[in-house]
Amino acid sequence: MMEGVPGSRDEAVALDAADPLAGWRDEFLIPDPDVAYLDGNSLGMTPRRTIERVDALMRDEWAGGLIGSWDHWLDLPQRVGDELAAIVGARHGEVVVHDSVTINLYQLVHAALALRPDRRVIAVASGEFPTDRYVVDGIARSHGYEVRHGFERLDDVAVAVRSLVDYRTAEVVDLAAETARAHAAGALIIWDLSHAAGLLDVDLRGAGAQLAIGCTYKYLNGGPGSPAFSYVAADLIEQIDQPIWGWFSQVDQFAMGPDYVPRSDVGRLLVGTPGIIGLTAAASGIELSAEAGIASIAAKGRALTAYGLSRCEALGLESPSPTDPARRGGHFSVRHPDAASITRILAADHGVIADFREPDLIRLGCSPLTTRFTDVHDGTHATARVVAP
Amino acid sequence: MMEGVPGSRDEAVALDAADPLAGWRDEFLIPDPDVAYLDGNSLGMTPRRTIERVDALMRDEWAGGLIGSWDHWLDLPQRVGDELAAIVGARHGEVVVHDSVTINLYQLVHAALALRPDRRVIAVASGEFPTDRYVVDGIARSHGYEVRHGFERLDDVAVAVRSLVDYRTAEVVDLAAETARAHAAGALIIWDLSHAAGLLDVDLRGAGAQLAIGCTYKYLNGGPGSPAFSYVAADLIEQIDQPIWGWFSQVDQFAMGPDYVPRSDVGRLLVGTPGIIGLTAAASGIELSAEAGIASIAAKGRALTAYGLSRCEALGLESPSPTDPARRGGHFSVRHPDAASITRILAADHGVIADFREPDLIRLGCSPLTTRFTDVHDGTHATARVVAP
Repeated sequence: MMEGVPGSRDEAVALDAADPLAGWRDEFLIPDPDVAYLDGNSLGMTPRRTIERVDALMRDEWAGGLIGSWDHWLDLPQRVGDELAAIVGARHGEVVVHDSVTINLYQLVHAALALRPDRRVIAVASGEFPTDRYVVDGIARSHGYEVRHGFERLDDVAVAVRSLVDYRTAEVVDLAAETARAHAAGALIIWDLSHAAGLLDVDLRGAGAQLAIGCTYKYLNGGPGSPAFSYVAADLIEQIDQPIWGWFSQVDQFAMGPDYVPRSDVGRLLVGTPGIIGLTAAASGIELSAEAGIASIAAKGRALTAYGLSRCEALGLESPSPTDPARRGGHFSVRHPDAASITRILAADHGVIADFREPDLIRLGCSPLTTRFTDVHDGTHATARVVAP
Repeated sequence: MMEGVPGSRDEAVALDAADPLAGWRDEFLIPDPDVAYLDGNSLGMTPRRTIERVDALMRDEWAGGLIGSWDHWLDLPQRVGDELAAIVGARHGEVVVHDSVTINLYQLVHAALALRPDRRVIAVASGEFPTDRYVVDGIARSHGYEVRHGFERLDDVAVAVRSLVDYRTAEVVDLAAETARAHAAGALIIWDLSHAAGLLDVDLRGAGAQLAIGCTYKYLNGGPGSPAFSYVAADLIEQIDQPIWGWFSQVDQFAMGPDYVPRSDVGRLLVGTPGIIGLTAAASGIELSAEAGIASIAAKGRALTAYGLSRCEALGLESPSPTDPARRGGHFSVRHPDAASITRILAADHGVIADFREPDLIRLGCSPLTTRFTDVHDGTHATARVVAP
C-alpha cells in the first residue's frame, strides 16, 4: 500500500477521503472528473442548483409571473447582499450585489473622495489588478488627483484602494492592521475582496473596514460575469454620494418624480435595472458557500495550498506565494520564465487547467468546495514534468 | 356569424387569424394563454429558445468549457451588438451590448460633453424617463452644467438626451429631423431607444444619428434586467472618452499593463466583466426579432395600436396617444383619474396585465411578436367595464 507515503498520489487520495468538505463537490456539475481544474479563482464551477434555479426563474418567475415578478425582484440585490454579508463579516443591510467590480469601485472611490475634500491623493499598488488601477487612474485624470503607488505614506491620502489578496502571489494583507493604519492617518480605504470573498473568513466589521467591493464569479461560484458586490459600514451609508444617478437608487422609484433623492439604505449604490438572471445565479453560488460554512471553507483552502506548496518544494518548483498560511489566499503560483507555454501545455496535454499571469507566473487555484487534493497533486506533478520532462 | 362585425371579439379573432406574425407567439413560453399581457413594453415575454440556450450555456460552456469558454465569451458583447445593429439601422461594429441604460447613458453623456468643451448646457425633457433625467442631473451637478428642460433652443446646448418614443404617451419623435436640427445647432444628441428597439424600424444611420443607448428587456424580449446597448457612429468611436476605465475596454486586456489605453473599436465602452448568462438571454431575444424582421414587426405594432385606439374611441376611453401611426410607438395609453386602481383591478379580476404610470395613465403595451388582437380587444373592453361597470 502506497497510502500515506509522502508525495505519492495515494497520499492525495487519502487526504480527499478524509476531507470533511469533499461531498460538496457533488453539488457541482462536473462533466469531466479527470480534469484537474485549478482555475476556480478565475471562474468558479457550476453549482447544479444554479441550473435548476435559473431554469425555474425563467419558467415560473419570468414566463409565469411576468411583470408581476418585479415585486419580488426589486429588492433582490439587497437580499442577496444580506446572504453574502454573513460570509464576509458584514451586518444585515451593509452589502448589495450589483453591477461589476469596476462600476462598484468607481462609485465608492468617488464617494470616498467626497468625504475627504481636503486631500488630493489616491493610493493604489502599482501591481494591483488592472481594472482597479484603471478606475483610479481615470478618476484621478478627470478630477485632478495624484495617484500614489504604494501605502507607506498615508497622511495626505484621501482614499487607498487595496486588494485583500494579491491576484498573482496570493499574499494576504492584514485587514484589521492596515485598516486601522489608514484610518489613523485620516485616509479612507476601499478593500477589493475579489480573491477573498467565499474563500477567507473575512471579518469586515471586526476589522473596522468601512468600504469594500468584490466579485462573485470566483470562489462564490456565481457564474461567468456574475454581478459584483459593494459593502458600506452602516454608519457611513447615508454619507455615500456616488456619481451615477439611476432610478434603482431613487427613494421612491415608481413615483418617477422630478428630483433625484437617493435611498437611505445600501440600495443607494444601485444604478440601473439589475440583471435578474445573473443575480439569481450569483445568489445560488453564495448560498452554497453559506451552507458549507466559511470557516470550514477557509480551513480547507489553507490545507490545499499548504499541500500544493509542499509539492512544489519537493518537486523543485519555485513559488513566490507565502508559506505562512495566515498570509496566503486560495492559490499558489509557480514562477518560471516559460510560464505561458507551460500553462498551455498543461491544459492541452495533461488535463490540468491553470492560469498564466504576466510575466512569469502559473497560478494554481484551489477552490475549497470543488478542488481535490488529487487535483493539486496532479497539477503540481504535471507542471514538474512539463518543466523538466 | 359575428366575424368581421366591427367591435366584436370575433373581429379580433379574425385579425389574429390573418396576422402573418401570429406564429411567432409559439416561440414563447406562455403558461396561461388566457391572460391578456399588455406589458411587453415593460418586460417582454420568455422565448422558449432562451430557456434552452441558457441551459446549454450553463451545462456546456460554463460547466463543460470552464475558464476556456472565455475565449468565446470575450467578444460576445460586440457580437450580440452586431446582431442588434441590423435591427436599429446601425452598421457592423457600431453597437455593443453591455451594462444598463443608466450606465451607458452616463458614459455617453460624459463622452459627448468632452466633445463640446465650449458649451455648458445639457438638454433633457422634464417628462423624460426618470433614470435619464437623474443621470443628466447628477453629471450637471458634479461638473457644473446647466440642465435645460426642452429642446426649442439648441445653439448653446452641448448634449441633448431624448427618447425616441415617449414612455407615457408613445409619441414618436422625428429621428432624422431632430438629429439634423441638433447637429445644425452644433449640439450632440443621444437617443434613448428603450421603447423603440425591436419595435420600430429605426434607421440610426439613415437619420444621421451619432449616439444612442437602449434596453433589451422590452420589445427585444431579453429577460428581466437584460443588458442594455450603446451605439456610436463609426467615425466617432475613436473620439469617445468615457470616464469609467475598466479592463474590458483596455486595448490589450490580458497584458495587464501599467497604463489604460482604450480599444479603438466600440468595445471601448465596455467596463467590467460582462454578465454572460444575461447576455446570452439577450442575444436569444434579439435573434428572434431579427428573424421575424423588423419591418414586419413595426407594421404589426402599428396595426395593434391602431386597433386599440379604435376600440378606445368606440368605448369612450380617452387616450393621449397619437392617432398618426407614424408618430406612435408600441403602446397606447388610457387617461383616467383612477388609473392606478383600474390597473390593479384589471390584473386581479380580468386577467389583463397593463401598467400604471403616474399620474393618470394606464399603459396598454403591444409587443408584436406576442400580443394578439384579442388581447387588445379584451384589454380595452375590460378597461371600459372597470371604468363604467
